[in-house]
Amino acid sequence: MRIATLSIGDELLFGEVTDTNASWLAGRLYGAGVPVRRHLTVGDDEDEIAAALESLAAEHDAVVVTGGLGPTDDDVTARGAAQATGRRLVLNEEALARLREFFDRRGREMHPANERQCLLPAKAGIIPNAAGTASGFHLVHGGALLVFLPGVPAEMTRMFADSVLPLILSRRTERRSVRTLVLSIFGLSEAEIGARLTGIDRSRPGLTVAYCVNYPLVEVKLRGEGEGAPVVDELLAAAAPLVRERLAGFIVAEGDETIDTAVARLFREKGMTLALAESCTGGLIAKRITDLAGSSAYFLLGAVTYANGAKTRLLDVSDDLLAEKGAVSAEVARAMARGVRDLAGSDVALAVTGIAGPDGGAPDKPVGTVFLALADRAGCTVKQYRFSGDREKIRTITAVTAMDWLRRWLLSC
Amino acid sequence: MRIATLSIGDELLFGEVTDTNASWLAGRLYGAGVPVRRHLTVGDDEDEIAAALESLAAEHDAVVVTGGLGPTDDDVTARGAAQATGRRLVLNEEALARLREFFDRRGREMHPANERQCLLPAKAGIIPNAAGTASGFHLVHGGALLVFLPGVPAEMTRMFADSVLPLILSRRTERRSVRTLVLSIFGLSEAEIGARLTGIDRSRPGLTVAYCVNYPLVEVKLRGEGEGAPVVDELLAAAAPLVRERLAGFIVAEGDETIDTAVARLFREKGMTLALAESCTGGLIAKRITDLAGSSAYFLLGAVTYANGAKTRLLDVSDDLLAEKGAVSAEVARAMARGVRDLAGSDVALAVTGIAGPDGGAPDKPVGTVFLALADRAGCTVKQYRFSGDREKIRTITAVTAMDWLRRWLLSC
Repeated sequence: MRIATLSIGDELLFGEVTDTNASWLAGRLYGAGVPVRRHLTVGDDEDEIAAALESLAAEHDAVVVTGGLGPTDDDVTARGAAQATGRRLVLNEEALARLREFFDRRGREMHPANERQCLLPAKAGIIPNAAGTASGFHLVHGGALLVFLPGVPAEMTRMFADSVLPLILSRRTERRSVRTLVLSIFGLSEAEIGARLTGIDRSRPGLTVAYCVNYPLVEVKLRGEGEGAPVVDELLAAAAPLVRERLAGFIVAEGDETIDTAVARLFREKGMTLALAESCTGGLIAKRITDLAGSSAYFLLGAVTYANGAKTRLLDVSDDLLAEKGAVSAEVARAMARGVRDLAGSDVALAVTGIAGPDGGAPDKPVGTVFLALADRAGCTVKQYRFSGDREKIRTITAVTAMDWLRRWLLSC
Repeated sequence: MRIATLSIGDELLFGEVTDTNASWLAGRLYGAGVPVRRHLTVGDDEDEIAAALESLAAEHDAVVVTGGLGPTDDDVTARGAAQATGRRLVLNEEALARLREFFDRRGREMHPANERQCLLPAKAGIIPNAAGTASGFHLVHGGALLVFLPGVPAEMTRMFADSVLPLILSRRTERRSVRTLVLSIFGLSEAEIGARLTGIDRSRPGLTVAYCVNYPLVEVKLRGEGEGAPVVDELLAAAAPLVRERLAGFIVAEGDETIDTAVARLFREKGMTLALAESCTGGLIAKRITDLAGSSAYFLLGAVTYANGAKTRLLDVSDDLLAEKGAVSAEVARAMARGVRDLAGSDVALAVTGIAGPDGGAPDKPVGTVFLALADRAGCTVKQYRFSGDREKIRTITAVTAMDWLRRWLLSC
């Protein structure tokens, strides 16, 4: 089944927003076994939209269109659809009824402009929108199913899952299945991983290995393709153990997990508590920990001791030590980790001190010099790093390195 | 001048990565006065690429292509280009020389597979790549300029700015200019803003007003279009003061500034220092402050007092107060703000305590209940909010509300 996606909107062509709808749809369609073959973006122009629909409908079995269903003058998708399919624009009674009910339910007045959203190509089927004013619609033209959804991501994703994907799958004739297993790798370069996985897909038709850098992690994607899900499952089940073996020790997360959710899960499973002392990462690690609901079960305290005085006042790091060794040193990292662990009374504490840049580097301690210290019941260990990149990259790789250390510590509990 | 962009890559069609190249290019081309008319995405398939190039070249004056120039088997863009333009694939001597120099300069060996990246359509011009192994290339086919760049964003953006944009602009015949002025608005809904700006573009041909939600901010974009830059500048210079007047008090940033960079600038200008005490935002505000280089000039300390015990141990919030009023209360927010200000010795301190969800809500304090407190030399003020949305939305709007309070406080200094 050949599927295309079409995104409509001037804001996309002017680079004001990134097209997240296209990649979301692509991921869902791929996951359902009907990958996208081509994607097109055009502006809020009736003729452009009509031309795009005509050419895509001619070469695909289904086209999923997003955008341009709003109540303002620049929303012309329905007109473009009517033009492309040679239909008249009519006031769709079902869309109008749903629109009225949408406003009634919220105790609000419908604005006259909203009625415009019910002018749709004749005989189009309606796709209900529980979260917004624009009904989606669908029609068949030249053998191709054309589906039209709002561009608002929250509305579109819900309508796609509830109504559109079933509609598309009901028209599928072939039984091809695809599935991807993703492993997040930290500590090996793309080239090193590629070298370790050489030949994995040899004599395994239907299996491909792809790599995607998600700095500072590399995502290894095992893609299986075949006639039906059992074939694909077997393909991946045979290859996956080999991959895990060849990358053992560097796999930080698999499947739906990320390194952050893996750390959260391990904290809960082991029943341990955490405190953080951050200098150059400035709250980034605490933010990543607390991004996840339920973190209050294990995260007690974070000290963002950005100024030297803060390290002294909060964590009892001695002024003399700071003066003698400097804020960015193994000794201060150790003092910070011990200090925050005592302060919080946590099982484990992690401290970070370093130079994120672009300023602050020196010949003996250039930008990217980072000390991490981990304190637990057994004592305190310090590790030193020399990271490269800009400020954002250095903060990010420091945070991930810290997360990975916590992950390994938890696994060893 | 009609421009199209073409992104090549299976990872895009499978939804594994979002196409940031397309929106970056779109923004740059729009900003240079040559907006993109159409964007297409195809997979790593030689025939698909060839077909896409043929159809885009037929209808546009320039096509900017990204992706598929790497050294592995799935990189087939050069082949697709050769097929589309009816040229032979030849070993490009300039590309080879640059590749050898790239490895020499880094003291590394060239892998035989890299030579594949120098097989380009005959008589293509080279676009140098200082940051990677793939040379870009360009050629003219049927009157259209076709430009090929790597998909790696850091490499592509540099090559585009250095070589490609000048090449495109040198072929431009018309003198149309466009420019957009962006104002970030906080505290008004899109509908309220639209109502205040009604009629702004009336009797101003060439001026349009567009709105983009960047939660929880709304970006108002004044777009001016006309024959040459002076005309456009005048259009915007006439309209902008009217817009600023109608949205006075709600404009948090303009042009290249964001609310975060505006706050950073004001801290530096006023010479003030800051301390933060965060509970439900869990380090997010500290992270946003320290994202910006130079924040150590004004940011002293952040206390992420996630557990109640942390509020007591770090900020001297009394156990009795916590027991009596609860962690999420005006009294505790006040105690946290005062406590962290005393601890850090800062000019101003901001504290946050609230319920980010999805758990933790109660009938009298539902999810989204947030108290912000600001302590300075004059005293301490507390504000209460009832935010809605999921955990991420609640944390985000809390952080922006806090940033805006700091902004207003700084302006009043």
